[in-house]
This record gives sequence, structure tokens and C-alpha cells, in this order.
Amino acid sequence: MAAYSGEIVLFWAALCFVFISNIRAATYSIPLNAIGDCQESQYFDLAELKCKDCGDLQRQTENGLSCECAAGNKLIENRGAPSSIACQPCPAGAAATQDGWNCIRCTTGLSPTNECAACEDGAIGVEYLIDGKLQTQKSCQNCKATTQPDEAGTRCTRCDESVISLAGTCVCNSPRVQTGGLCFPANSLSEATYNVPFNSLPDEQTSLTSWFFVQNLRAAEYMCRVYQNLTSCQLLGNMCVMLDYSQEFQAETSACFHYLALQTQQGDFGEISGWPNSMPWLYYDPEEDTEDIVRETKITTKFSAKPSSENSKLKMFVGTYAANGTYLGLQPTTGGTVQLCKDTVKKMDAAYTFATTYTSSCDINVQDFWNNYETLFYDMYIQFGDNVEAQELYAIPVLLDSYKEDQNYVNRRARVRDWQLTRRFFLVDNLSGKETIDTPAKVVRYASSIELEISIQQEAGEAREGKIYPPLLKVKYGEVNYDEDYESNPTRKVTFAVTYFMRRGGSNKNISITIGVLSAVALLYAMVKSNAWRRRAGLIYIDISTMLKFILFAFGLLADVLFVSTLGTCLYWLLFFKRQDQVYLVLPTRGQEEKFTIYVSVAFVFKLFDLAHLLFSQITADIFLIDWERSRGRVVQSSDPSNTSKGTMAPISIWRTYFIANEWNEIQETRRINSVFQIFAVLFFLEVIGLKHLTTTDPRSDVSPSPDDYTGDQSRVLRFAVASGMYIIIGLVQWLFFTLIYERFVEDALQNFVDLCSMANVSVFVLANNNYGFYIHGRSVHGFADTDMKEMRTQMKREEDNLCGQRGLLPNSDQQTFEMLLPTKFREQYNKIYQPLQGAVARIEGQRGRPTAGGDQGNERLNQAYATMNKFLCTFIDHGMRDIDYMVKDKLLFEQILDMEFYDPAEKGFFFNDGGHAFNKVLFHGQEVTLLTFEMLLFCIVDLIFTNYALAGIITYLAMQFLIKFRDAAGRNNLAKKTLVDERFLI
Amino acid sequence: MAAYSGEIVLFWAALCFVFISNIRAATYSIPLNAIGDCQESQYFDLAELKCKDCGDLQRQTENGLSCECAAGNKLIENRGAPSSIACQPCPAGAAATQDGWNCIRCTTGLSPTNECAACEDGAIGVEYLIDGKLQTQKSCQNCKATTQPDEAGTRCTRCDESVISLAGTCVCNSPRVQTGGLCFPANSLSEATYNVPFNSLPDEQTSLTSWFFVQNLRAAEYMCRVYQNLTSCQLLGNMCVMLDYSQEFQAETSACFHYLALQTQQGDFGEISGWPNSMPWLYYDPEEDTEDIVRETKITTKFSAKPSSENSKLKMFVGTYAANGTYLGLQPTTGGTVQLCKDTVKKMDAAYTFATTYTSSCDINVQDFWNNYETLFYDMYIQFGDNVEAQELYAIPVLLDSYKEDQNYVNRRARVRDWQLTRRFFLVDNLSGKETIDTPAKVVRYASSIELEISIQQEAGEAREGKIYPPLLKVKYGEVNYDEDYESNPTRKVTFAVTYFMRRGGSNKNISITIGVLSAVALLYAMVKSNAWRRRAGLIYIDISTMLKFILFAFGLLADVLFVSTLGTCLYWLLFFKRQDQVYLVLPTRGQEEKFTIYVSVAFVFKLFDLAHLLFSQITADIFLIDWERSRGRVVQSSDPSNTSKGTMAPISIWRTYFIANEWNEIQETRRINSVFQIFAVLFFLEVIGLKHLTTTDPRSDVSPSPDDYTGDQSRVLRFAVASGMYIIIGLVQWLFFTLIYERFVEDALQNFVDLCSMANVSVFVLANNNYGFYIHGRSVHGFADTDMKEMRTQMKREEDNLCGQRGLLPNSDQQTFEMLLPTKFREQYNKIYQPLQGAVARIEGQRGRPTAGGDQGNERLNQAYATMNKFLCTFIDHGMRDIDYMVKDKLLFEQILDMEFYDPAEKGFFFNDGGHAFNKVLFHGQEVTLLTFEMLLFCIVDLIFTNYALAGIITYLAMQFLIKFRDAAGRNNLAKKTLVDERFLI
Repeated sequence: MAAYSGEIVLFWAALCFVFISNIRAATYSIPLNAIGDCQESQYFDLAELKCKDCGDLQRQTENGLSCECAAGNKLIENRGAPSSIACQPCPAGAAATQDGWNCIRCTTGLSPTNECAACEDGAIGVEYLIDGKLQTQKSCQNCKATTQPDEAGTRCTRCDESVISLAGTCVCNSPRVQTGGLCFPANSLSEATYNVPFNSLPDEQTSLTSWFFVQNLRAAEYMCRVYQNLTSCQLLGNMCVMLDYSQEFQAETSACFHYLALQTQQGDFGEISGWPNSMPWLYYDPEEDTEDIVRETKITTKFSAKPSSENSKLKMFVGTYAANGTYLGLQPTTGGTVQLCKDTVKKMDAAYTFATTYTSSCDINVQDFWNNYETLFYDMYIQFGDNVEAQELYAIPVLLDSYKEDQNYVNRRARVRDWQLTRRFFLVDNLSGKETIDTPAKVVRYASSIELEISIQQEAGEAREGKIYPPLLKVKYGEVNYDEDYESNPTRKVTFAVTYFMRRGGSNKNISITIGVLSAVALLYAMVKSNAWRRRAGLIYIDISTMLKFILFAFGLLADVLFVSTLGTCLYWLLFFKRQDQVYLVLPTRGQEEKFTIYVSVAFVFKLFDLAHLLFSQITADIFLIDWERSRGRVVQSSDPSNTSKGTMAPISIWRTYFIANEWNEIQETRRINSVFQIFAVLFFLEVIGLKHLTTTDPRSDVSPSPDDYTGDQSRVLRFAVASGMYIIIGLVQWLFFTLIYERFVEDALQNFVDLCSMANVSVFVLANNNYGFYIHGRSVHGFADTDMKEMRTQMKREEDNLCGQRGLLPNSDQQTFEMLLPTKFREQYNKIYQPLQGAVARIEGQRGRPTAGGDQGNERLNQAYATMNKFLCTFIDHGMRDIDYMVKDKLLFEQILDMEFYDPAEKGFFFNDGGHAFNKVLFHGQEVTLLTFEMLLFCIVDLIFTNYALAGIITYLAMQFLIKFRDAAGRNNLAKKTLVDERFLI
Repeated sequence: MAAYSGEIVLFWAALCFVFISNIRAATYSIPLNAIGDCQESQYFDLAELKCKDCGDLQRQTENGLSCECAAGNKLIENRGAPSSIACQPCPAGAAATQDGWNCIRCTTGLSPTNECAACEDGAIGVEYLIDGKLQTQKSCQNCKATTQPDEAGTRCTRCDESVISLAGTCVCNSPRVQTGGLCFPANSLSEATYNVPFNSLPDEQTSLTSWFFVQNLRAAEYMCRVYQNLTSCQLLGNMCVMLDYSQEFQAETSACFHYLALQTQQGDFGEISGWPNSMPWLYYDPEEDTEDIVRETKITTKFSAKPSSENSKLKMFVGTYAANGTYLGLQPTTGGTVQLCKDTVKKMDAAYTFATTYTSSCDINVQDFWNNYETLFYDMYIQFGDNVEAQELYAIPVLLDSYKEDQNYVNRRARVRDWQLTRRFFLVDNLSGKETIDTPAKVVRYASSIELEISIQQEAGEAREGKIYPPLLKVKYGEVNYDEDYESNPTRKVTFAVTYFMRRGGSNKNISITIGVLSAVALLYAMVKSNAWRRRAGLIYIDISTMLKFILFAFGLLADVLFVSTLGTCLYWLLFFKRQDQVYLVLPTRGQEEKFTIYVSVAFVFKLFDLAHLLFSQITADIFLIDWERSRGRVVQSSDPSNTSKGTMAPISIWRTYFIANEWNEIQETRRINSVFQIFAVLFFLEVIGLKHLTTTDPRSDVSPSPDDYTGDQSRVLRFAVASGMYIIIGLVQWLFFTLIYERFVEDALQNFVDLCSMANVSVFVLANNNYGFYIHGRSVHGFADTDMKEMRTQMKREEDNLCGQRGLLPNSDQQTFEMLLPTKFREQYNKIYQPLQGAVARIEGQRGRPTAGGDQGNERLNQAYATMNKFLCTFIDHGMRDIDYMVKDKLLFEQILDMEFYDPAEKGFFFNDGGHAFNKVLFHGQEVTLLTFEMLLFCIVDLIFTNYALAGIITYLAMQFLIKFRDAAGRNNLAKKTLVDERFLI
């Protein structure tokens, strides 16, 4: 350390000195100069980024970063730095040698630029001998036969074999023909057309003469035909690809015609039909059945969706050829080799992860087509083979959208047999549209859409685990026109996609069968239900209203059937697609999803009808509150016993009835499940926990994917499966919680209501249908309930201490709630009492809007009807009428299951012990399944339309709120009308 | 067309023929072969992708795609195709010429590989004369002085000037020294050390001898020193950069020492202190104040955040140099020039969009450091200048994290003055760690973190519109060791960031002042409130409970102050940051956000206390329901007038009281604003409409950004501003809707309650504090309410027809609701009645859990107390007591504003007409502001923690549900206890 520090001090002293001697106002900017800004006599100082003058007799070098001697001067020193170059003028009549270090006299005379004039064609100017000896003067020397001057013009080298072999010299003279840099014998070249057709040429031009074809077509054809020159054959093939494989355009002289003619000559390579020896493979043999080609089963790899498996990647390769036929190697497609849209390598490589439906598209500046792309041709293969030693490449056919046969785009047809498959494609072709070597291409063609479609092997409708048919590459080209598009520099959209396809025949059929069978069951059940309804409505024959009911019941049940079948299928897809190792399932394509969408939509519409039906039934149910209270006697005003006035009957307070009506009103729209919590919980799992990430079309099942990873598009079926799966699970959990825990241990709103009825001495009599309904027996065991607080407390105390009778309808029973099936006679009597009342209510409503304070007459009739009804029902319950009576029974098990009654209430009505809260059928509380299914379908439908779970949750919330408000308002109105309790007390 | 079709038919016929003749089982796969799989005697057929045999006497060419003649054979034909090559053996003693076309006799004899043996050093083997004439034999010829054989060995060319100038020949012989490909005179080279220090070397090695330094250091130093060779100077500079600019490591012979020594010699370039002439600029002048350097204001560009403005981009350039000093041009940094993490160009270029805080990081495979990167050096500049003609480049200083001075990392210090700024940096250096030319580098260094920090110019705390100080590039390097890391191939994380910085002194101070002033006001107001409370509580002196109240009030008010101040600031940031043209505001950095987080958290905690206080006050309020009903008289059982039994007093039904209590229980937790709707609406705007996209740290204000665009990180302040802004707006809209529309035209729950009281003949008497409370006058105008339905209907009809008196407390008034300030005497009386009751309730509760059915004695006392209290309150309201009376007044305006009373209720109590629903203060309905603020703060706090609006919404929902349930249960309990109504009726 000590040894160091001395050095360091010295060092710093030196350093400080430098800077101290230079103190001035600091500034840290320099002018922006480019090399091109420098003059001819300047160089660009790469250290200071500015132009500086060269020395005398000097000029800029070609790259602009240094100086060299001006013409007519020779170098005398050069140490690499511009400042260390020194030049000296050559004597008169002499010029600098090519290496710049010597002057030499010119035998050919000086050019105006102070250089020696060039020698004649075929001659070289000799400055140095072969051993480096400087000549005294630069003399011209003719090259020997079969040689010609090299590029620098200082030595003779052998010229091209094609010239030598024909002429024996280096001159390709008539009648020999020179083309493509080669020399050909007279009359040996084939006829050829150089026109290339384009769609986007102006002025109704359909083709232009291509410089590239002029340059290369005939030479390539000759070299391929005569010498089987591999590169030339590729070049010829490329030109055919540039023509879209068209065999029609100027047919007998086109590149494709020549290719096909040579193909005939060459014969096939190996066992591959259509691939000629030593030539590129362009066309699939048209004699082969295209169906067979795309349904070959030779690829033996069993692909896996497990990321760790080595078969989880599609190992694709492209044999790459430059436009001139040069082979550029067999490149893997990873790293975006055939993707015009550049992204991170990781995302681009996701395209080749098996079972990942991949799409990437972007807008490309058209100028890039001219400037940033080279015209390359690709033959695509997929690697397979079980044996590591003997891997094979399977050729991938190209379905070229714009391929024409007899003026028809056969590849656009639906029938696979009509297709003509091809092999080679390009991404950008900015070569065939050139008219001269120096001008940019008039038209550039680019692959606007590339789709690699991978089909899963199927056998008798079943997928064979992880095996695929040969992938099919669907290619579409677009064109951009230089004159129209280059200057305005718009963008063009290009797409690259990898899709997976499976024929759904089998599974579609299965779904259809399931739906069919279940629908039949549903219709049967709907018939049973409508029949039960008919009996309950007191109808003897099946009439139009029974038919209508049947249709409405069928709607509800069919909706369930559709929903369950669809959900089952989607859950199957979700679970098996996301968790498969050997891939035997891929997601349906967009088109295949359509059927699914229809099922869900229909289910939703049916469920909507079902819900409307349910609402209508509930808000029109007949209800009456039976007050059992009797007057305590006559009230006398004075305590004076001498007052012998009879007094009036003590009025029975109506407030208990008001109270019960109010409470009934409140429990009408109470649900077992908290629907807001339901929505929030679903959103929590989908959005926060991240289950929504399971809905992408990649086989990853990761709830928090990294943003670096490629994320597939959203799959409708998966979104549906995840959303409704979560909805059902959370709904079930809530239902279990409320049924098993909350209602037992915390609070049971319905039981509280029944208790309240008992304490208020008021029974609830509900008729859901004409002859069918529910009864809550609320007769107080104490006789009177209309009393003061002290008495009430005493009563409750007695009940707690078991000092009084039981609350049940039958003696010594606790059963307070019943289903009722009543005889028609009862209903007739009921209607008779109710009839005038209905009219009065209607009239009062017409007058005032509220049924309370109408005309006195109406009011009077109301009161009378109320009293009569109360009395009628009390008598009925008390078995006080001989002709209208009932008996209490238990329901048979089968009756319970089918929710119908077997007995005919012709003589007597039946009161069935319901054991629970059967009356919740006329409340939302008892219709949880219908409501939940509707909610769920609404949620899914909104998500299908907007692909947004949050929005689905919000709309579901709003809809359910509206539903509740509607049920509340309509239910209150009905309650007020039927029980004659003023709406003002139903708050 | 017709002309064509003929051709086409022919064509197709030909085509078909080809294929028909080849029908066989189709197969489309070929073995996977690579060029390397071919044997020496084979070539790789590029058309068929397989190896094929070359002809006789032939072997593979170097690229493997064709054949050439084996040694000792000459070409006789070559048409480009491997099949068209023909060879012929040379005669004995002869070998093929280099071009392969001729045989020539060797004067030097044949080598074992059948080639002519090489000539001696400095001699060439002549095959052809300069004019292309073939020699009869290949003779050796010595090169003339100053020339040496070229690469092919067939011609002599001039050798390097450094050798010639020293030796006159091409041989650099002792005592001259050859290094770096050049020749140097004896003793002219400086001493140099070739060691480069690394941290990750094994076995406690601290440095290794670098092949690159051995090769180049001394030569570069000499060439730079003696000839000012620009490239050599750059090379020397690069080596110093490779040493981390360290002036300490083997000090006097290191590259940096040599650089600094030459810097002294060269003098500064232009006005830039520290940049030597013709040399790279590495160090900033240590004499300059670093503070001044980073606070220079010379960059005149006014940057804009408007995307269309031309000043919305940072135009950055890097002067790029290869490791050997070659200048590679001034490249723009767009396109990811200095970003190791590759992404789409659009996203990478977003880094240079002004005011966009940019971060990208990724994991790079360490193998890439060896294989895919070239060692390049960068000098960074930013372009500026108002005049298009005279643009300038401003040098950007580098703050190198690992720079050491006296063994200290000075650049890691906080004090800017201690820093040593430098200029040049690299991304990957895989050159200095090489020990020989052929082995891979033992250690590679890479830029693990690059941060471009841009500071906004400020003047007296104010930002100068859109102007910046020089950006500062903070660079950290990491190391990977070949032996440890290459094989296991792990990844290393690299980061590139652009951050914006503004000193917040001024605005922080402003916020602090605002909070200070507002807090003072809040404390004053809290004092006023606690004083008002003291009077209402009937306290004469300020005691400990008043102090406690003061603190609780202060909590609530301070929370509001903090919230409002923070929200104001954040909204300011949101609006001005997202909408600015000339940038004068950038977002606070993560560190600067801390203060904001503290404010919000404190506000939340304070508000939580406030809410607890509110809840406690509400659930302990005293309440009593006054029943005005009187008994109708005595009830006699029989209608027989002869029965002269006195009968009992007709009981007054308690059910009206039950009804009122039940309704009061229901409106307790009713809120004016629907809190679930509030949350859904906020989520709708944030998540569905997309306001959440406004919260990123880029100046774009686009609610639906394209996924192709770069999206900045989430900014906490913006998230807070957007969320609470939306919360307030929606809350306000809801409040206005419910207040102005819903309550007026649809339903007003409180007014309904008041009406119900009137009809039930029950008044509500609430004491919020000891002597302060609310009174709802519910005395029926009809005298009796405890009657049957008929009578009720008649009463309502009379009221509608205006046939009875008005409902108000005072005659001929409608005023039913009052605030009360009562004399202490009243409270004493009240307590006296209530005292035994409290005990009884407590005892009963202790026994049974429910206050209803206790011991008979307790029950009796309860009933008695109830009756007494009812009577006492009736008498009080009826002015029936002389010593405890009240008068009805209007509140003064100032009293209303301050929410306190100026009168002293020593003698008489006061009933203030409240004009509205003043009693809602003891309900949630009247505490909307507190509840909403709490909700909002909770929402924001959750979002700050989890950065997830959906989760924030869900948690807020759960919290509010819990709050409501709690308020409901506690309120019910309190109500049952205070009004003596059994909880079973409060359902």
C-alpha cells in the first residue's frame, strides 16, 4: 500500500497539473457534424467529431475518416494518423502508382485527373513486376488467351469457363449469346418471357418486364437443363414462385413452364412424388389426393403440452435460398425467421410451443419492404423421429391463396380435393418488380398473412394422443406499389398465426345427443309439471292455458339442459386442455365456437322467459292475512258502575296485521344467497387471484403469467367455463353456508317470520295457484295478542317455560306451515267474497292511484269484504264448514320428488305438512336455483359480448338490482291489493 | 383466351404425364442431414438436402456444397454443378495450379499432399506471368526490398510502413520490437502492465493477464503518443475504460496512466476541459465542480409531452467505437442501440419519449455474452439547438458505479461533489478477459444496470418550462465467470431505465404549509365542536371527557385535512402531468412518493378512529318511543247490561310501538348513497372505461392504449388521484340524485317513518348526548290509532280531505321534527326513572341473554319503568311539569353553521325546529360524508398496497358490509335495551 500511495500522489499531481493549467468556463457541447459535412479537402476527426483540414496535396479518403494523397502525388509517409501523412508531387508526365507510394511515367499519357490513361480492353497496365520491382514506366500488356484483366487492371486472370469453352477466348461474341454473366452457344437458349403479373400496377397494366427475369431466366433454364447446375435450378424455381406458380401466364415461355418441363426430364427424387432430382420441389403431384396429403399420419412424434417435455415444441426448419439460388442453410424457425412482426425472441418462439394458438400482427412501414428486406425463399419442414440418431424432416405443404388454375382460385375452395398444394414461399419479394437494376421495384409483394394450421390426428372421431397430421401453411400475399405508396409511407398489416384444428364431428355429435336426450327428459318433466299445475289450478281438461304453462315450464327446463350440457363440455375443455400432457385436445377454432355461442344465447333467452314467468307467478299470488283476534268485549267509557250504557265493541287493532304485512313485504325479495357478495367473490377469484389468466389459448395454466411471456388470445369457451365454474362453486358454498350454518345458528328470516305470526295471532294464507297454496298457522296459543307490553312479556315467558300449548295447527303438534290443495268449492267461495273487493279496489285505484281512500261506498265494501274473508278463512281453518273441509296429511315421497299431488281434492282439501318452509316458493328465497342460473347466464353472456369480467359483474349487479326493485314494487302492490293493507304501511 | 387455352391443355397434358408416370405410395419426408454429416468425398446436395458422392479424383469444397479436384488433379470442366465437374490427374512431379485449371511442375518438389512445396520466406512461387501466361514450372522468386509475398503467395506487395521506415526491408528484426502488427524502434515503447482486475476470478486471483492488452497496449500508446494516430488513441482509451478508469491498479504502467499522461501532452480540445486533442474524452476535469456539471443549463431545447411536437423526443446519439478503436459512426440510440433487452422497436424507442418513465429488464442467457455480443464502446450525446442549421451535441456524463479513488467508491457517495464523472461505457466486454486469442474470455463484464436520469431545470423552486439539466447516465457493471457460469447457462438480469427527477423542495414546502394552516383551522374547529359537545353533555367545566372528545373530533378533522391536501396535490399532478405541452412537471420518484404514502396512511388511521367514534356514539344513543294512546275505557265481557262487573281497563296494544321500533331499526343503517353501486360505478369507470390507464408514468392520456405501445409503471400518486377523484365525483352524483330527485319524487324513507309515527300515535324521543337529542312528534291527530282497519281507513281519508288538524307539535303547524337541548333537571329525572330499568335489563341479560323474559320481579319493574317513562315524557311534551319545561325556537343561522347552541338550557329546554331530518345524525343516513370518506380512504389504501382496483373494491365492499352488520346488530341491541322492545320484533 505504502509503495503504491507514493505513486498515486505523483500520478495525481500530474493529473491536477493538467487540469489546473486549463481552468476556464467549462462547456460540454460540440456542434453536430456528420462525415458528409466535410469538404473534399477535409477529413472527419473521429476523436473530436468534427471536420479538419488535410495537409497539402491531400484529399479525403473514401470513408472520410482520413486523408490520402491527391492524384498526381505520391505518399512519402503514412503512420495512420491524418496528421502523419506526407505527400510529394510526381514529376511531370508521371502519376502515382495504385498503392500510392511511387510515381511512374505513363506510356498511355496522363488523364485529366492526373492518372495514367487506361489501357485497351483485354490489356493490363503494369506498374510492378511480379516480384514487386517497380517499372520505370507503366506499360500496357495484352492478356493471354483465356485470361482477362483483374479488377485492379494490373494482372491477367482466367475468365469464365462458359466463355472459354465456347470461344477459347474471353470474349463472348456473336452468334454466341451472353446472359446472366455467362456465355451460351447460338440457338441453345429457350424462349422465355420476362413479364411478371401484378395486380396493383397503374393504368390497367397487368404485368411488367422484370429486370431480374431478363437477367436470369434463360441462363438459369439453360444451366439447369444442360448441366443440372443446382443453384441455377433453384433460381429457376424461385422465379416460378415469384409468378405465384402460375402455369397460365404466358404459358409456354414462363418460368413455371420451364420448371415443369425440366421436372419431366429429371424424374423424381427418391420416393417423393413431385420433387425432381437436383431441382427444387415446388408442386405437389396433382395426381395425389390432396386429402391424403393433409391426412398423412407419418409424423410419429407424440407432442406434449408439458413445458418440460422435449416434445412440447414444434421443431420447424426452413431451407433458405437466396433469390439467385444460393443455399443459405437449414434454419430453425425460432427467433422469428419467418415472422415479419418482430417482438422479443421469447414471445416469437411461443408460436412453436405445441397447443398454443398464436397470433401476432403488426403494421409495417411500406418503405421497409424496399429497404430492409432481402428477397429470400423458404421450404418449410418439421423435424420428427423417435430415434435421436435418425431424425427426419417432414415437408410442410403450402396452400397459396392466390394460386390460379383455369382462372380460378382453386385454393380458395372449401373442398380439399380441389386444392393444389405447393412448397416454397417468400416473405418479401422486392426483386421481381424491378424494371432496371438501379430503380427500386415498382411493386413489392409481401406475405400479408401466414397461418400455420396444425391438425390433430383423429381415429374414428377420437384424437390420437399428441399426434398430428402434417401442418398446413396458408399463405396470402399482398402488394404495394412504389409510386402510390412509397412517398406517403403508410403501413400495411401483416399477420402470423399458428392455429390448431380438430374435427369436432364426434364431440359435436356427443353434445347434440346429450342435449337431445336431456331435452326429451326435460319436456317430459315439463309435461308432468304442467299437469301438476293443471290440477292445482283446478282445471279438469288440458286447455290453452295448460299448453302455455307447458311451454313456459319447457323454457326453463330447456335452458337448464342447454346450460348444463354446454358447461359440461366447456369444463371438459378447460380441465383437459389446460392439464394435458399428451395433447389429445385442442380448443375449438373461432368458427367452431359459434355453436357454443348459440347454445349459451338460447339458454339465456329461455331462462329470461322462465324468470319472467316466475316473477309473474309470484307477483300475482293471492294472499290473505287471517287475524284470529277476537274482541275483548264491549268498552265502556266511564268507570262509574252506574253508567249502564252498553258501550261499543272493543275494536281489534289492525296494527298486528300491518306488522305481519310489512314483514312479509320485506322477506319477499330476500334471497338465500347474497348476490352482491356472489359477484364480488367471483370477480375476486377471476380478476384478483387471476383465474382469468386460465382463459387464454395457450396450454399454460398459470394464474400470474410474466408479462414477458406470450399470452394467447382469449378463448370464449374457456372464459365461459372459468366464469360459470366459479359462479357455481361460490354459489354452492354460499348456499351451504347459509343453509347449514347461518340459518341454523345465526338467523333464519323465514322462521322468525313464522314465530312473529304466532305472536301476532295472525295466519298467512297464500294461494299460489287457483286451488294450491301455502298456509302459515299463526294462531296465538294465548288467545289474545292485541295487548300491552306487560301482557306480551308474560306470554313470551309462559311460552319459554312451556306453560302453554303448542303452536301447531293440529293439537300437540308444532307444525305451523303447510302446503294446501283445496277443493274447487273453496275457491268458488273465496272468489265470491273477493269479487266485489276486486272491483272496489280497481275503482278506487282508478280514482286515486292508491287503494286506500276511495269513495266511502267502496271503502265500506272493502271493510265488509275484509271482515267476511277473515271470518270465512277462520271458519275454514277451524273446520267450521261442513261442505268445505280439509284434512292434514303427509306428502308421499314420490309426490315430494315430482312436486305434485296425487290426491284429488274434490271432496276435501288437503293440508300437507311441509316440514320446512314450503311457502318460500312464492318468495325469491325458494327460487334460488332459477335466480342463480339466470345471474350466471347473464354474467357469461355479457362477458361473451364484451370479453370483460368486470363489466359482466357490473351489469349483472345492475340487472339483479333492477329485478329486486321490480319484485319489491310489484310484490308490495300485490300485497296491498290482496291483503287490503295500505301501501304506506309496507315500508 | 382461346389462344391461351390450347397452350394450357398442352401444358397440363405434359404435367400430368410427368406425374402419372410416377404414381406410387406418396411420402413426404427426408432424413435430416447437415452439411457436416457429409464425408470428405461427398458434397451436400442443396436441392435434396442430402449428401451425394463427388466424382472421381474429386473432394468436397470448403463450404461443402460442391466438389473440386483433389490435390494433384486439374480441372478440365466445371459448369457449376457438382455433376459437371471433370478432373484429370497431373503428370508425375507436377501439381495443379492454384486456380486448378492447369498442372505445373514443381521446382521445390511435391509435398505429401501432392502440392508444390512452399518457397522460402520472402519468396513467391510463380505459376502464371503477369499477363496470364502459364509457366512451364513453378519457380520461386525472391521479393524485392519493401515487398513481401501476398496471401496467395503468388505476387509481391508492399509491406507495412512501420517496418520499412525502420529497417528498409519487410523484416522487423532485433533490436526492433514487433507488437500489435507494427514494428517499433528499440527502447521507444513505454513500460506497460497487461493485467486487468476482475472480481469474480477463482482462487483469490484479483487480475489476469489480458491477451488484448498484451497485443495492443504498448503499440497503441506509442502510436498515439508519437503519431497521434486517432484509432490508436481510441484503442488506448478503450483499454482504460476496460479497467474501470482505475488510476490505481498497477498505477504507473496502466492504460489509464498512459492515457492521462498523453492527455497532459496533448492539451484540451476546444473549450471542453478534460477532452484532449485527437484523443477520446474519458474523465471530466476533476477540478470542475461536479455540481456545476450536472446543473449546467446550456441545453436550450424546450421539451414537450405532446406526441406531435418535434421536441417530444430525446434525440440521443452514441459515438460508437470498436474495441480496436475503429470509429463506427454516430448512431441514434433509437432501435435499442444501448439496450441489452430486446423488445419491439416501438417499445424500445418509448424510452426516449420525453417525460416517460421507462424501465425494461430481462434475463439474458450468459452464453450470449460470449457468443452474441461484440465489445463496443459508446460516448453518449444529446442533440439540441433551436436553429435547424446549427444543432449541437451535448456530452452526457457517465456515473460509473464501480469507479474507485483511493480504494473508495466515490461515485456511490450521496454528495455530488465527491463524484468523478466519466464519459465512455460499454454494454458487454468479452475481450479484456481473454488470456489467449483462441480461448473464450475467462470473465465477461456486462452493463447490468443502465439508468438515464433526466433532471428538470428549476429556478427558485419553479420548473423552467420543458428545459432540462444534462442527463446523467448511471452505469453498473456485472461479471460472469466462464468456468462457473458458462456450462450451467444461468441467466443474468439486466436493466435499462430512463427516470425523471425534479427537486421537490418547493412543492413539498407548499404542501406542508397547506397542511399546517388547515390543521390549525381544523384544531380550532375541533375545539368549537368539543365545546358544543360539552354543553350538550351538560358539563359545566372542561374535564377529561371533553379533552378526549376534542382529540376524537380532531382525528376526524385532521384526517379530512390530510386527505384534501393530498388529493389536491395528486389531482394537480394528474391533470398537469397528463395534459402538459411544455413539460414543467414530472412525477415524483419512488422515494419522493413516500411522504405521500405516509399522509394517506395517517389520514386513513385517523378516519378509522373517527368512524369508531361515530359508531360508538350512535350505538349508545338513548331512545324511547312515546305511546300517546290512552285506554278506551273498561272492557266488559258480556253484552248483558245487567252484568255490572267493572271489567278491566282495555289494554293499549303494544304492536304500534313494535312496528315503530322495527322500522327505526331498519332505517338505522340506511344510507343516502348506495355504497355497493358506488363501488361498482367506480370500478366501471376505472376498469371498464379504462381510466386506470391514466395512472401510468408516461404522459400519454389515452384510456385504451394499444398493446403495442410501451406502458409505463404504475404511479402511486396517479392511482390515488384517479381513484379518489372518481370516488368523489360518483359519490357527489349519487348524493345529488338521491337528495334532489329520489327522495323528492320517489321515496323518502325518513319522511315515511315520520308519517308512520303520526299514524301510529307514537313519538320518538332520542337523546344523542346527555342533554341533547331529537324528537319526532308522532301524536295522532285523531286521538286514537289503536283501532281496526275500517277506522284506520277513515282516519286516513279524513286527513287526505283535510278534515282534521295538522300534525305539528305546535298548533297549526306541520313541524314534527325537532332538535332538543334539555335542562339538566330533565336529564336527572330521566335517569332516575331509567336507573332501575338499566339494572333489570342487565340482570335479565345476564340470566338469559335476551332482555325479555327474566325473573318475574325484573319483568315487573321493567313494565313499571316503561309506563312511568312513557307518562313522564308525555307530560313533559305536553308542558305538564312546571319545573321542567321547554320552548320551541328557530335556530340562529350561526348556530346552524357551527352546529352548536348559544342558549343555556338552565331554566327551560329548547326545541329547535330543524326544518328537515336533523334526527338522521344518529343514523347512518346523516353521516354520509364521514362514511364516504372512510370508504374512499380504505379503497385507496388497499390499492396502494396491492395496486389492484378490483381488489380494493372487493375489500371496501366487505368492510362496508361488516360495518353495516355491526351497526345493525349493535343498533338493534341498543334499541331493544332502551325502548324495551323485544329483539324478536326487530327483524
